[in-house]
Amino acid sequence: MYELISVDDHIIEPPSVWVDRLPAKYKDIGPHVIDDGTREWWVYEDKRVDTMGLNAVAGKPFEEWNMDPVRFTDMIQGCWDPKQRAKDMEMDGVVGTVCFPTLPRFAGTLFLDFQDKELADLSVKAYNDWLIDEWCAAAPDLYIPMAITQLWDPEKAAAEVRRMAARGARCITFPETPAPLGLPSFFTDHWDPVFQACEETGLVINMHIGTSGSLASPAPDAPFHVLIMLAQASASIGMVGMLESPVLRKFPDLQMVFSEGGLGWIPALLERCDRMWERHRMWSGLDDLRPSDLFKRNVYGAFVDDQVGLELRHRVGVDRILWESDFPHVESVWPHSQEIAKRVAKDLPEDEVRKVFAENARKLYNWPAKVDAKVAVA
Amino acid sequence: MYELISVDDHIIEPPSVWVDRLPAKYKDIGPHVIDDGTREWWVYEDKRVDTMGLNAVAGKPFEEWNMDPVRFTDMIQGCWDPKQRAKDMEMDGVVGTVCFPTLPRFAGTLFLDFQDKELADLSVKAYNDWLIDEWCAAAPDLYIPMAITQLWDPEKAAAEVRRMAARGARCITFPETPAPLGLPSFFTDHWDPVFQACEETGLVINMHIGTSGSLASPAPDAPFHVLIMLAQASASIGMVGMLESPVLRKFPDLQMVFSEGGLGWIPALLERCDRMWERHRMWSGLDDLRPSDLFKRNVYGAFVDDQVGLELRHRVGVDRILWESDFPHVESVWPHSQEIAKRVAKDLPEDEVRKVFAENARKLYNWPAKVDAKVAVA
Repeated sequence: MYELISVDDHIIEPPSVWVDRLPAKYKDIGPHVIDDGTREWWVYEDKRVDTMGLNAVAGKPFEEWNMDPVRFTDMIQGCWDPKQRAKDMEMDGVVGTVCFPTLPRFAGTLFLDFQDKELADLSVKAYNDWLIDEWCAAAPDLYIPMAITQLWDPEKAAAEVRRMAARGARCITFPETPAPLGLPSFFTDHWDPVFQACEETGLVINMHIGTSGSLASPAPDAPFHVLIMLAQASASIGMVGMLESPVLRKFPDLQMVFSEGGLGWIPALLERCDRMWERHRMWSGLDDLRPSDLFKRNVYGAFVDDQVGLELRHRVGVDRILWESDFPHVESVWPHSQEIAKRVAKDLPEDEVRKVFAENARKLYNWPAKVDAKVAVA
Repeated sequence: MYELISVDDHIIEPPSVWVDRLPAKYKDIGPHVIDDGTREWWVYEDKRVDTMGLNAVAGKPFEEWNMDPVRFTDMIQGCWDPKQRAKDMEMDGVVGTVCFPTLPRFAGTLFLDFQDKELADLSVKAYNDWLIDEWCAAAPDLYIPMAITQLWDPEKAAAEVRRMAARGARCITFPETPAPLGLPSFFTDHWDPVFQACEETGLVINMHIGTSGSLASPAPDAPFHVLIMLAQASASIGMVGMLESPVLRKFPDLQMVFSEGGLGWIPALLERCDRMWERHRMWSGLDDLRPSDLFKRNVYGAFVDDQVGLELRHRVGVDRILWESDFPHVESVWPHSQEIAKRVAKDLPEDEVRKVFAENARKLYNWPAKVDAKVAVA
């Protein structure tokens, strides 16, 4: 059995996350779940939002997938229950998992929209505390804690990075490009406090496609599956933006993961970036940092099931490849991860198999090996 | 010496194109060039636009590239003079070339903005007639005629396709996705008359990245070279949009070329598209047409200098690969095309070399081989 560490899974938050933690004055307008008789809703401030069946398709046959909202009881328990999730992961051979939030959106961008910024701030902290105290505590060897931040205030966000690093977080989730959210881009110095805090604490930055609220698309009326097919375009937009921004020049030790984009397009992208860098740097004042060298220094790609990507692994860099399960979303191959992993890695030597499925992630997130931990106890 | 056919070059129109052809009443507001003493401008209706040095960098060392506007005298003559261009192409081993317009923009989208739609219509036809009568006539074996159309009126555009097919055109240039131009998308039936005319006449549709006015970008303040590096993202957005639109279902014989995107990312994209098609088609009502099969039936990719792409040529499909020179733009390796071609194709067998650099284009555009023509004459 392969040992698998997934750098991209998704928590469906149970209704108690904020209700249990926000002060009494926010009980009515803090995030909570209501049932109107026909379905369940998340309610906060003056808004209500549904959840989508696509967010929780794990264990369902393809024929039953749909975009309809669901009740918690329509999902398998592992979507929202960390103890059950741990069992689901164990049966699939997954020994470590980085989980993105759902209601807060991938990097907590939901709280940008909150009118009451004190509530927003407390809601960010409530999620992070719940994550450590309940989600991760349910299986502390399995869950690699990932924090969200206050995206409307880089100083507050930097303080939260430090607070959560002290609480054991290994990474934060952040928009792959903030501009589509109406926030300053990575070509400004606006985000320096956050990046500085990450560099100081060693926290990794996980960039999931779509966190910016923008997915590559040819037209507003394009069917949703077109946007899903274009994941590599979405990931590459964030990646090239980051590679060519001042961020990696000012904070050379930062480590970033681009989730759910796959790998197979990265060699062609880096070849092109290097070629354009050769041709344009003299007139446009680019520095001496070759894009492919920056990639190898600061960036990781991730895959679920990517034959071309693993064939090209030496061009990507075997040390820069991570695996993801995407449980319980549409990309996930759960509970068949072992079978798929063995198929896509059939031509890899054993040391490379260990790296791409677990060791690279262990090193990146400074995450003790479960096996080692047992050995140490014995 | 390799025989090269380029499917993506650029005409810098000389000042006479519209002046010589529009009726007298449009002399003042039809496109013409003025010199205000410090520089030259294209003027039309109540607007004036510059040209960019980047549009005409051929023959300049990298150090002299810039974004500044130029005079015609700042460019090498082959930018705007078809007889001189023919000599430039000949010395580079190029025996066929498809040229995109510059002032009209790649697919004539400039004329969408014209207030006077009679002037716009006459300007489209004037460009097309100039192309056949002057540009292509200067070297009829070399220039593969490509028409523009009236994008504000699909019926007019379809009539122009038929008129130009009768005049010898082999292809049209069209937006890779019309939505960013404020036009109906390919997910509507709005463009059916144009596609029907192309299918009937056998005219190929050339989709150059950026024709839609939209290039993949992480932020409005991203430096321009970031957008250039992201060419593969831009091309993939148009390509997946087309593959998943009704267009190729209704017009199964259409042939389309995606220019300036390169090749190396196509195998990973098609692998992902097929995988998502497998996973989503049952709930989302997709048909039985696998994206990679549609690609092989209807779509071509193009490259200037793409090592990864040629390594993966069998995954792209050797019959679906075309070469481009991009003369006189920033991608171009002119006058070193032979040297670069031999470097990137060093591992290809001779029959594949012939296909990707010339034979595929000859077959696609139904373009008589220069060599065969000479043989026929002898």
